[in-house]
Amino acid sequence: MSGYVSDAVIRRLPGYYRHLRELEAAGVRQISSQELGRRMQLTPSQIRQDINCFGGFGRQGYGYTVSDLKEHIGDILGLSQPHRVIILGAGNIGGAVANYPTFAREGFQTQAVFDIDEEKIGTNVGGAEVLPMTALEEYLKEHTADIAVLAVPAREAQTALDRLYIGGVRAVWNFAPTDLNHPEDMIVVNVHLSDSLQILSYRMAHRRTE
Amino acid sequence: MSGYVSDAVIRRLPGYYRHLRELEAAGVRQISSQELGRRMQLTPSQIRQDINCFGGFGRQGYGYTVSDLKEHIGDILGLSQPHRVIILGAGNIGGAVANYPTFAREGFQTQAVFDIDEEKIGTNVGGAEVLPMTALEEYLKEHTADIAVLAVPAREAQTALDRLYIGGVRAVWNFAPTDLNHPEDMIVVNVHLSDSLQILSYRMAHRRTE
Repeated sequence: MSGYVSDAVIRRLPGYYRHLRELEAAGVRQISSQELGRRMQLTPSQIRQDINCFGGFGRQGYGYTVSDLKEHIGDILGLSQPHRVIILGAGNIGGAVANYPTFAREGFQTQAVFDIDEEKIGTNVGGAEVLPMTALEEYLKEHTADIAVLAVPAREAQTALDRLYIGGVRAVWNFAPTDLNHPEDMIVVNVHLSDSLQILSYRMAHRRTE
Repeated sequence: MSGYVSDAVIRRLPGYYRHLRELEAAGVRQISSQELGRRMQLTPSQIRQDINCFGGFGRQGYGYTVSDLKEHIGDILGLSQPHRVIILGAGNIGGAVANYPTFAREGFQTQAVFDIDEEKIGTNVGGAEVLPMTALEEYLKEHTADIAVLAVPAREAQTALDRLYIGGVRAVWNFAPTDLNHPEDMIVVNVHLSDSLQILSYRMAHRRTE
C-alpha cells in the first residue's frame, strides 16, 4: 500500500480483516465485491475502491481470493509480525485483554501483567505472571515490550504512561477513561467504551416507531 | 435535532459529550470552536458545522456555553433518561462493564448479572446480584431490561441473543467477537476490541522513521 491512504479507509481495514477471517474459517475461497459489500454494509463500488487503494487486487469478474486478500490486509495492519504485550492492571479489563480469544492468534502475545494488589501478584492471568507494579522499570530493562495495555484506574494512568515512556515503550492501548499527554514518538490508541454504549443509546432514542 | 444527520456526525457525538463533560468538570464555562476543535482534533469549521447540525447553538464571537451544549448533546444521545441494564456473563468483560466508572453516572443502571457458573451465582458484581442464566426468562417476565450486555463466549452468544429477544429485550451491546443474527426491531451494537488493537498495530507498522 503506497501513497496516501485516508483515515476512513484505515478505520475500515480491521473490518475487512475480520470478515475475511470469518469467510476463510467458513471455507469460502472467492468472494465478489457485491457479497463482501453486503456483509460489510458497504456498496460494491466502495469495496472495489478500498481494495484498489490497498494495492490493486481484484480481477474484473472473478472477485477476490479470500485467503490472499486477508493475508495482504493482515500485512498492511502489521499482523504478520508478533507483538510483545505487557498489561498494566490485572483487574477486569486487564484480565479481559489477557484472555481475549483472538489476540494471541493475531500475534499479540501477553508477556507479563503488572498490578499493585499484593493478592494478585504471583497469580496467573491469561497465561502470564502478575508482577508487582514496582518491578516495571526492572522488567523493561531486561525485556522489550512492543505494546503496553493501560488498564489501571484513570487517576493512575498518566503516571503509568510516563513510566512506560521512560522504560522505552512507544505504543500504548489505553482503556483508562481519560485523555493522556504523551510525547509525539509514542502512539496512544484510546478505547472509549462509553462511546459505543452512547451510540446504542442514541439509536434507541431515535428508533423509528413502526 | 431534526432532519438528516449523517452517521459521521452521530459517531462524533460521544466524543463531544466526553470532552464537554471533562471541560465542565474542570470548571470551564465557555469554549470557542477553535479551542474545542483543538481538543477534539477537528477544524473549527467542522465543529461549527456539527453543532449547527445539532440545532444551532453558537453565538458568533461568544463560543458555546459548555454545560448547555453538554446537556443538549446528552439529550440527543438519549442520556437524559435512565436505562435499565442486565449483563449476560459475569466474567472479565461483564465485570468490567458492571464496574465501569462512568456508566452509572450516565444513567446506565446495572440491575442484574447472569452467569452459568455455580460459583459466581449469588455473588455481587458491580452492585448487582449474579443470577443463574436459567433464570433469565423468569427475570424478564417480572422486570424490564432496556439494554442487555452480551459478555458470554462467542459460541453461546447467538442462543443468548435469541432468548433476550423472546424475553422482550430490544437493545444489545455485544462484546462476543462474532456477528449475530437479529430481528430488525432489535438494535445490536458490537464492540470489536480487536479493531482498535489492529489500528494500533497499523500505526506502529507505518510509523514514520524520523
